[in-house]
Amino acid sequence: MFFELSEYKERLQKTRERMNNEGIDILIVTHPANMNYLSGYDGWSFYTHQGLLILIDEEEPIWFGREQDSNGARLTTWLSEKNIYGYPDDYVQSTTKHPISFAVNTLKKRVKNLCNIGVEMDNYYFTAKCFEQLLEDLPSSIVKDATLLIPTVRQIKSEQEIIYMKQAARIVERAMQSAIDAIQEGVREGDAAARVYYSQISGTDEFTGDYTAIAPIMPSAERTSTAHLTWTDRRYKRGDIVFLELAGSRHKYHAPLSRTLSIGKPSRELEDIAKVVIDGLNRTLDFIKAGISCEEIEGRWRESISGSKVVKESRVGYSYGLNYPPDWGEHTASLRPGDKTVLKPNMTFHFMPGIWFDAFGFENSEPFRVTENGCETFVKFPQKLFIK
Amino acid sequence: MFFELSEYKERLQKTRERMNNEGIDILIVTHPANMNYLSGYDGWSFYTHQGLLILIDEEEPIWFGREQDSNGARLTTWLSEKNIYGYPDDYVQSTTKHPISFAVNTLKKRVKNLCNIGVEMDNYYFTAKCFEQLLEDLPSSIVKDATLLIPTVRQIKSEQEIIYMKQAARIVERAMQSAIDAIQEGVREGDAAARVYYSQISGTDEFTGDYTAIAPIMPSAERTSTAHLTWTDRRYKRGDIVFLELAGSRHKYHAPLSRTLSIGKPSRELEDIAKVVIDGLNRTLDFIKAGISCEEIEGRWRESISGSKVVKESRVGYSYGLNYPPDWGEHTASLRPGDKTVLKPNMTFHFMPGIWFDAFGFENSEPFRVTENGCETFVKFPQKLFIK
Repeated sequence: MFFELSEYKERLQKTRERMNNEGIDILIVTHPANMNYLSGYDGWSFYTHQGLLILIDEEEPIWFGREQDSNGARLTTWLSEKNIYGYPDDYVQSTTKHPISFAVNTLKKRVKNLCNIGVEMDNYYFTAKCFEQLLEDLPSSIVKDATLLIPTVRQIKSEQEIIYMKQAARIVERAMQSAIDAIQEGVREGDAAARVYYSQISGTDEFTGDYTAIAPIMPSAERTSTAHLTWTDRRYKRGDIVFLELAGSRHKYHAPLSRTLSIGKPSRELEDIAKVVIDGLNRTLDFIKAGISCEEIEGRWRESISGSKVVKESRVGYSYGLNYPPDWGEHTASLRPGDKTVLKPNMTFHFMPGIWFDAFGFENSEPFRVTENGCETFVKFPQKLFIK
Repeated sequence: MFFELSEYKERLQKTRERMNNEGIDILIVTHPANMNYLSGYDGWSFYTHQGLLILIDEEEPIWFGREQDSNGARLTTWLSEKNIYGYPDDYVQSTTKHPISFAVNTLKKRVKNLCNIGVEMDNYYFTAKCFEQLLEDLPSSIVKDATLLIPTVRQIKSEQEIIYMKQAARIVERAMQSAIDAIQEGVREGDAAARVYYSQISGTDEFTGDYTAIAPIMPSAERTSTAHLTWTDRRYKRGDIVFLELAGSRHKYHAPLSRTLSIGKPSRELEDIAKVVIDGLNRTLDFIKAGISCEEIEGRWRESISGSKVVKESRVGYSYGLNYPPDWGEHTASLRPGDKTVLKPNMTFHFMPGIWFDAFGFENSEPFRVTENGCETFVKFPQKLFIK
């Protein structure tokens, strides 16, 4: 376990307070990061249905999942034996039995009143079928959307969480340097990606890295005109632009980072854009501190780049931290118009003003934590258009 | 694009035939592997809502997704410009606007009759909220579960798909060898995992590898008592058992493989179990051919190990192939009692008789394709308990 038991209990206390405010007696938690946050549970078992059941008046969550993963719950969580329920394998990817029914049966053994149930409606691991099955099994219960209940608690990091995020930052610095070292004319994109992975996982002499919630995003040439492409067999050519959107992960706490590299002399246009974006990023970072809102940050960015050629319609950043595939973002606050979330100390964001034109793009980002009087960036890595 | 246009059209033809049989006029496809299968679409953009809309009487699918990913659709699919619809960024992770409403609005522009709609109810990328929003936006439509409609088409692989799966097999052989070479007393688990990743992605001189849909599963010591744990900072010790459940991936086509390693002399008990499992595996492989059913395969396995100490309650294998995180399995056929799927040539399975006891386990698997008169294993790698 990577945190003191008292920290897990504090997280649960905050969760139950929110449940109480929202009139939720039972919370079904299927988001792997939320499960980990409350119980420590860790394993690549989220491809079958599993979850935690949080009862408003019990201190300890109940884990349910596939029987063959239940020793994983015994090994990675602080839960007692009576709160671990494994389901038989005939529930797995079956068209006649669904694991949500097993969860409901477990609840029936433990709780009298199955009235107000919270579920994570817009989470990858609570499918449409989970919802339909729950309504079928409990037709008289009230089911409420609690997608953001735990992620909102997760937004403000503890000191120990910040330590892991700083360790992740040490890892991403190495991964980024590996990419920049590896990429040159004639090298296959996949060979550069292999170097990145090696650095992400081998980490430092003090600690190794975990898998990241998003694969290395590292398109080149015209593939930099879009946001989320990975690598191919292609060999880099002189004149290529290469995106590097990478992360380090430590106990599933992330440090994402984007940089852009030009193989050979970049165009004047790209150099101009790089200058505008990096200036805008830093002027915005200078403005950030506790008490301002997410939309104010975006406004400051917009103001910083006004008059330039750079147009940025999409959000310029988002809250991030502990996560599992497919996303390291928390899906809570975004740096964009209309987001009135007020910054508090130890909220953590990835400021990511990615620019995508029709034929190429530019990315240069910084992850940071909010402090009382400013913000602290996690990563020490030069901000510039890299040229090989 | 990694297949001939005619192959994509054939896949769509089969999909539309099934839609017709099931009375589905519009199919909303959000599963990334299904999207790739029909259109070629590829990108780590599945963390925001996206999909294909398949209309019963149109030859070409419609892509919808985040505007910043729409150039990815232009670059990786065969779809024409009129069938690519990007949504503005204020739909992303919003509590007031949902991308399914954008998909519905797109449909309304293109189709008169929005009556019979198929959706992938039990798929990670069609959340409970997607379903609820769809019902809210189209209260008079009939929504049918089509989770397995495309995966059932995907079960039988084409010759070109088999070629990619064989390339993936070359990659996993290298990844497995890297693991066995790297693991020894005193080495950190994470350093061995880094070597595995390096081999998975750098591939061979002829081709590089893709990210796999499941991270390397490589627990040691008591963590081998359960199924899906990855690595830690821990240093291997003499007496450790280590699981290696790895894959190679080529254009997102997989070759999964499991082996077990003992650091130092294994216990007599583990040696006995290894013998039983490997004998049982091979006697079962000898039995497999087109025309028999999945439950008959499991029956043969059960018979092969009867009288031994080995007990295996969970399924012993599953259909696999093209996939994205979090699973390389197709969620169609499983090798278990009650699964009456009849094998056809070029169906592909991972025969994976993982054994987990209270304190340790043993894994030794083979991926194979069904042939007219038998089966062909994809991987050439010794079947044994490895000892370092």
